[in-house]
Amino acid sequence: MLAAPTLNPMPAAGTAFAQLHQHLHHTRLLGSISSALYYDQNTVMPAAGAAWRGEQLALLAGQLHERQSSAEYAELVAAAEAELGADAPPERRRNLQLLRLELERQRCLDPALVSALAKAQSRGNAIWQDARARNDFAAFAPALKQLIALRQRQASQLAAAEPVERSPWEILAQPFEPDVSKARLDELFAPLKAELPLLLEQVAAGGALSTQTAPPGAAVERADLPEALQEQLCAELLDSWGYDKSQCQRSRSAHPFSCTVGPHDFRITTRVVQGQPLSSFLATAHEWGHSLYEQGLPRTDDHYFPWPLGEATSMGVHESQSLFWECRVARSRAFAERWHPRFCQGLGGTTDVWDSPLGFWRALNPLRPGLIRVEADELSYCLHIVLRFELELALLEQDMPVEDLPEQWNQRMRELLGVEPATDTEGCLQDIHWAEGLMGYFPSYALGHLISAQLSETFEHENGSIQALISSGHESRLQAWLAATVWPLGRSVNGEELVERVSGRPLSARPFLTYLRNKVDELCGNP
Amino acid sequence: MLAAPTLNPMPAAGTAFAQLHQHLHHTRLLGSISSALYYDQNTVMPAAGAAWRGEQLALLAGQLHERQSSAEYAELVAAAEAELGADAPPERRRNLQLLRLELERQRCLDPALVSALAKAQSRGNAIWQDARARNDFAAFAPALKQLIALRQRQASQLAAAEPVERSPWEILAQPFEPDVSKARLDELFAPLKAELPLLLEQVAAGGALSTQTAPPGAAVERADLPEALQEQLCAELLDSWGYDKSQCQRSRSAHPFSCTVGPHDFRITTRVVQGQPLSSFLATAHEWGHSLYEQGLPRTDDHYFPWPLGEATSMGVHESQSLFWECRVARSRAFAERWHPRFCQGLGGTTDVWDSPLGFWRALNPLRPGLIRVEADELSYCLHIVLRFELELALLEQDMPVEDLPEQWNQRMRELLGVEPATDTEGCLQDIHWAEGLMGYFPSYALGHLISAQLSETFEHENGSIQALISSGHESRLQAWLAATVWPLGRSVNGEELVERVSGRPLSARPFLTYLRNKVDELCGNP
Repeated sequence: MLAAPTLNPMPAAGTAFAQLHQHLHHTRLLGSISSALYYDQNTVMPAAGAAWRGEQLALLAGQLHERQSSAEYAELVAAAEAELGADAPPERRRNLQLLRLELERQRCLDPALVSALAKAQSRGNAIWQDARARNDFAAFAPALKQLIALRQRQASQLAAAEPVERSPWEILAQPFEPDVSKARLDELFAPLKAELPLLLEQVAAGGALSTQTAPPGAAVERADLPEALQEQLCAELLDSWGYDKSQCQRSRSAHPFSCTVGPHDFRITTRVVQGQPLSSFLATAHEWGHSLYEQGLPRTDDHYFPWPLGEATSMGVHESQSLFWECRVARSRAFAERWHPRFCQGLGGTTDVWDSPLGFWRALNPLRPGLIRVEADELSYCLHIVLRFELELALLEQDMPVEDLPEQWNQRMRELLGVEPATDTEGCLQDIHWAEGLMGYFPSYALGHLISAQLSETFEHENGSIQALISSGHESRLQAWLAATVWPLGRSVNGEELVERVSGRPLSARPFLTYLRNKVDELCGNP
Repeated sequence: MLAAPTLNPMPAAGTAFAQLHQHLHHTRLLGSISSALYYDQNTVMPAAGAAWRGEQLALLAGQLHERQSSAEYAELVAAAEAELGADAPPERRRNLQLLRLELERQRCLDPALVSALAKAQSRGNAIWQDARARNDFAAFAPALKQLIALRQRQASQLAAAEPVERSPWEILAQPFEPDVSKARLDELFAPLKAELPLLLEQVAAGGALSTQTAPPGAAVERADLPEALQEQLCAELLDSWGYDKSQCQRSRSAHPFSCTVGPHDFRITTRVVQGQPLSSFLATAHEWGHSLYEQGLPRTDDHYFPWPLGEATSMGVHESQSLFWECRVARSRAFAERWHPRFCQGLGGTTDVWDSPLGFWRALNPLRPGLIRVEADELSYCLHIVLRFELELALLEQDMPVEDLPEQWNQRMRELLGVEPATDTEGCLQDIHWAEGLMGYFPSYALGHLISAQLSETFEHENGSIQALISSGHESRLQAWLAATVWPLGRSVNGEELVERVSGRPLSARPFLTYLRNKVDELCGNP
């Protein structure tokens, strides 16, 4: 559905590069089978299938590890490196660099650990689903403990391959955010920790200052939308953004996600949350943003699929793409004005809260600290991340006992956001990540906010206001700009380099905070 | 959900048998990954994913073939055979016999052919979906031609492993119906070809003779059911038959099917057919019958899953189980009487045809030649099979050009059933089987009718009338009987042996024809 430029010609048959290509193609097939099984597991698999699914995934993970770390593969990479002439295209050189780094990392890992991790992830997922439903952290704790121990072992095995000295958390974060460090995150997050609480206070006060009777986002639960209507509005949203069902499947799952199952096979999932009538709509915008990025990655044909340059460069950049469509577009005032009539129509006469486009815009932007990360507003979201980042460091690097997690979670929620969950289901059991032992991932979500804001600022500098484009029905220019400037970069640069390449400046929290200040002012009725 | 008896103790660690067990377990994991991908492909995969899915399945098929034919595997089987003492349990002996036969077959096959077949199957499926939707046989013909050529090569490679001389069609039919021969099918089908047309004539005449104004099944299209109501009735049907969603997932697909993705992970699919309001209900009964058999196969725990004795013995027996629930139960008069009120309730006041339990029973039993096999009634069904059996022989063994298929199909439909399709979509493009090159499979459907009838006769001999049990709300005894007598046999016997074991007599068409004669008499109003 999206034209992609040719970055790299097909390798000539018989060359070392062609042999390597073949090997990677096979590897990618196996990886994408895992993705298909993961999608199935989280959308339709009966609960009793979990143990066997865990074995299936472990088998594939073992095969993948073998293919990515075997002596045969190492020889293929070395031969391709040796074949690389001085006049080789830079893309080919970059592909080989990325493969070499990944190879060194894979070869550090014990296959038994890889297989144990895959099994523990699948088991952890199943136990978490159940524990979360029953609000039973104690049932989940042993699985989490095991996952943390396995991740620590993984980090310690991987340390040998790192080009620079890195802490266990930093090592585990590399696959998600290449070259990330705790120091750089501290630098980027410091202004957020300083300013976001002040903005939240301003909003809390703004309800009284506002000329509107309803304070921003105070009454979102007062309306609800029938499930069929939510479904219909999500479908209309996607249709208006070029959704092509011959390339993408939508399903329901407990936790929304996006995944790529083949070079022309994309999946997104959402969920309907009772009492949060806009949740599925915003989640659809979010997951579609992820999928658009995947669909727009450089890929002249299926054969480009196996190479690193055809992949997303970092989870932070990935998240910037989903947040762009969720926050910069779907939560914008111009968008609220365009969609308000459709929501009202669906609701019949019960639109007490959404009685005006402004009221609807406020409903889309509660700006009020809540318990759930994926439902969080733009002001508090990054504070949810800071909490998780700090807890991950405590669990992985500072010997915090797993048993302390609920209490620590609740205490930090109180300190950072001023709210406290009544149950662990709404607290430390809410996310799927730790259920699969994913650590080092969360900060990418916050980086996504920063990157999205900096890219948006650049877009507006070049093309004028995003809001004006939305109002005038020219949203498609947004997609065209991303397709031209961001998506084709693939992994030719890392996340921070991408931002600098596109915006001309190093990544910072400034554009994000500027954007939020303006939004808060407008939401609180200060023009 | 179903208790299964222990047939076979776990092998002791370190033995050749234990090593073989481990190997089979791994093989079964790979096979079940293919099943999961197949399910995904036919329920949710976007159309554009077909080519990549074909490569994924081909990769797995290649691995499976390698594991099932490698020298290493052959050594494991030989070592286990050598370890087999005179006092070994007969189940172990049988497992090894079945593995040996399958091994010899696999070793005859060229891996390149296995991979080419898997790709052609996936491609054939995709092309067929499209050609069927557009009624374009010419678009499908080249794919079919390629599949036939590949199957002929497969049969010729397999010939060396057959313990007796077999024709190409017979060789291809072995995996579905072990030990089947064309001569035995001729013998079993001859009474069907002789008597079914007479019964169809009797029904056609019976409309006039009947004391009812509506002739049997004449007006099923006059009523229709909203999709949501069909869905609800199917769910109620399954609930009443012990459906457990923690073990089984239901979805929609173009062609209903049942598959097993893991030892505790079962899937069934159905579809809603416009103008055929009872189709999804009957298909649900049918696919659930398949799934019940799979769920009831001998399997003390996951570890029994890899062994042949834990598998279905033949597709004919499989089909007998689905037909039992569809025809003997769901299409029975007693069942119609029990369910009539629920259907009426759902339909509100528009029940012109189903104005009585008898009318509803007739709607469930149209007994009128139609175009579509999966919608066919019990009288004409086997004639659809005879047609396909004969065409498969013509295509595989008698050089009939693929281009002649539509004409041959239509001509034989006229001769056998007195009806002719207006489009190939309703003709030779209707089934998925040839789209994947499946030949030798169709006769099992007819055998299923014969086996179901003979097992039912045995049940009634021992337990009294099935109808009386249904009327008195004791349907669960039917399931208990199958769980005790049929399902635990696994592959300890072949299909015909199973029938003889349970009924005490060789399989014949007599019980089926007796049952049909009685049903026709009753439907036509001759008590």
